[in-house]
Amino acid sequence: MFEDLQTPALLLDEVKLDRNCRRMRERLHAHGVMLRPHVKTAKNVEVAQRALDSPAGPITVSTVREAEHFFDHGFRDILYAVGMVPAKVARLAALSRGGARVTTIVDSVEAAGALIEACEREGVLLPALVEIDSDGHRAGVAPASQQLLDVGEALGPALRGVMTHAGDSYNCASTEAIRAVAEREREAVVTSAQALRQKGHACPVVSVGSTPTATFAASFAGVTEVRAGVYVFQDLVMAGLGVCEVDDIALSVLGSVIGHQREKGWVITDAGWMAMSRDRGTARQRIDQGYGVVCDVAGEPIEDLVMVDANQEHGIVARRGGGTLDFGRFPIGSLIRVLPNHACATAAQHGEYRIVRDGRAADAWERFGGW
Amino acid sequence: MFEDLQTPALLLDEVKLDRNCRRMRERLHAHGVMLRPHVKTAKNVEVAQRALDSPAGPITVSTVREAEHFFDHGFRDILYAVGMVPAKVARLAALSRGGARVTTIVDSVEAAGALIEACEREGVLLPALVEIDSDGHRAGVAPASQQLLDVGEALGPALRGVMTHAGDSYNCASTEAIRAVAEREREAVVTSAQALRQKGHACPVVSVGSTPTATFAASFAGVTEVRAGVYVFQDLVMAGLGVCEVDDIALSVLGSVIGHQREKGWVITDAGWMAMSRDRGTARQRIDQGYGVVCDVAGEPIEDLVMVDANQEHGIVARRGGGTLDFGRFPIGSLIRVLPNHACATAAQHGEYRIVRDGRAADAWERFGGW
Repeated sequence: MFEDLQTPALLLDEVKLDRNCRRMRERLHAHGVMLRPHVKTAKNVEVAQRALDSPAGPITVSTVREAEHFFDHGFRDILYAVGMVPAKVARLAALSRGGARVTTIVDSVEAAGALIEACEREGVLLPALVEIDSDGHRAGVAPASQQLLDVGEALGPALRGVMTHAGDSYNCASTEAIRAVAEREREAVVTSAQALRQKGHACPVVSVGSTPTATFAASFAGVTEVRAGVYVFQDLVMAGLGVCEVDDIALSVLGSVIGHQREKGWVITDAGWMAMSRDRGTARQRIDQGYGVVCDVAGEPIEDLVMVDANQEHGIVARRGGGTLDFGRFPIGSLIRVLPNHACATAAQHGEYRIVRDGRAADAWERFGGW
Repeated sequence: MFEDLQTPALLLDEVKLDRNCRRMRERLHAHGVMLRPHVKTAKNVEVAQRALDSPAGPITVSTVREAEHFFDHGFRDILYAVGMVPAKVARLAALSRGGARVTTIVDSVEAAGALIEACEREGVLLPALVEIDSDGHRAGVAPASQQLLDVGEALGPALRGVMTHAGDSYNCASTEAIRAVAEREREAVVTSAQALRQKGHACPVVSVGSTPTATFAASFAGVTEVRAGVYVFQDLVMAGLGVCEVDDIALSVLGSVIGHQREKGWVITDAGWMAMSRDRGTARQRIDQGYGVVCDVAGEPIEDLVMVDANQEHGIVARRGGGTLDFGRFPIGSLIRVLPNHACATAAQHGEYRIVRDGRAADAWERFGGW
């Protein structure tokens, strides 16, 4: 029963998790492209296994600790998708010597040279992808640019291909806009791979990824793999983008009502920003969901109720736009659930998932953190 | 050496920590009022011990896990400063039976009744303070109100006093404004204690707290204890309020340079929001510090350089307001430090502090989380 849990607690609806995983797998199977889920969202082996066809991977990671943890649980095909620095090579080299294929990424001749040198010191060869900047949001070289060719040359036999992340897809106002971003993402890596191949590089890996573009791309022609993370849980930012329905969100935070401010129309809970994270990702969307959409204990959204503000261990729940509440529905000690803006950020505030199965809290699944 | 650390890593400057602790202790000693530091900021025993005169407390906590952890390390005088709900009483009752004095807070007759009932089931008496709302920001009853007297009556022999938290002090534009908020905070609890005493309640505890008001209050007349947390580390929000200098900030995140976007004037690091938190507390201040002020590896701020944006594991460092950079100063793999907006939020993203002593990384101090 939920009543036996200490609040705040992180709940994970197993049926929704499995449905989200199945949909993405089926979609990418139909397109004939490989899924390489990003395990940074859940940082949990059970979730990754449900997302995959094979227990050995392929997976994408964002920290060396993720690489080590998943390696310890049998995963062998690991893409470390953050620009590599020499100080991280030793730990990845240890995995490589243990039988993992750990692929790294770089986006400059300087970083490529530093990688090669560190690998030589370790006596391993870590293959690398060149990161392509498809939308000006983060890292990467310009598609099919001279800089790309220079980095490819610097990598030499370590070069495995190209990758990009369409961060711009998070800012789109329509599915058409996401589709356009996805096509730009695809073109950026496909033209880059062609440019490298024309210079004699094999370039077998052409990798794209983001949950919105993975969901809406019209074509993956020339792409070999798709990375996506947040789709396993979904969240309010994804719902705001039309990537999922609010009902698809598998993650929620269980909180207890600790007080009422009747004149203000506020219910105070013990789920503050420590439980939800400080992520306000829906603030830039058409509907600002505050710190999250408030649901009853069964997970059904309560009309117009959002978490409008947060202290470290206090949540303030009110009607969107103000107005009075039926306080009788929220006695002291009663339970509510809050759907998160950003599943990756909210999950990171917790050490375990409590699995919701048949309407009750079942197993606890560990979630690790750190680097 | 910092070069031996895996980045991102959370650094804690021991000299600044001790100086911050000493200043607050001396200030409150001079005012003759007891300091009850809030251990939610650091969630670490060594830090709390440096903040205190006595190894047994008094401390303020925001989670039951904090209460349990500090009890296990010898602390006995513990205020749990979040509205109490019956489901949390069993764990606190266990501490009480073990010899702790655990004080709780409530702000309604309903919560007071639920607390008393749960305590009777456990066979303990947990003393309680009534929370007073001194500025309309969160929980609490109106100062010296009928509701206060009703809650006091409902608590009966469990009533120990009153407490408030001047959250409004975080929004002040000047130290004069903070001083005015502090006086309102003091008045709110002192008049409330008087109202309870006139009804025959002893009301020995009169508790106020927030780092800004603790720093600037002109008077603590009638107040018995001051709660404050973030002052042990200080942060950019506090510096923006004039509570400290940027040079007093004891906490920073060590990151590695992983790339450059030369045309945009960006340095990309491996310290993203997972390392800094999503807290953007300076966004509402006169100077928006982005995700943090960027320093060299020795901790000296680099003129005008801030972390302007963040992905989960990517930080984007640029000049405030744009402009070019001396990229030669930031080779791939080189180290930078970032001062946080909000120390409580940034520390919560990490499992340990690396102590900076004599300019080098020394011991690791564990930081716990969860509820």
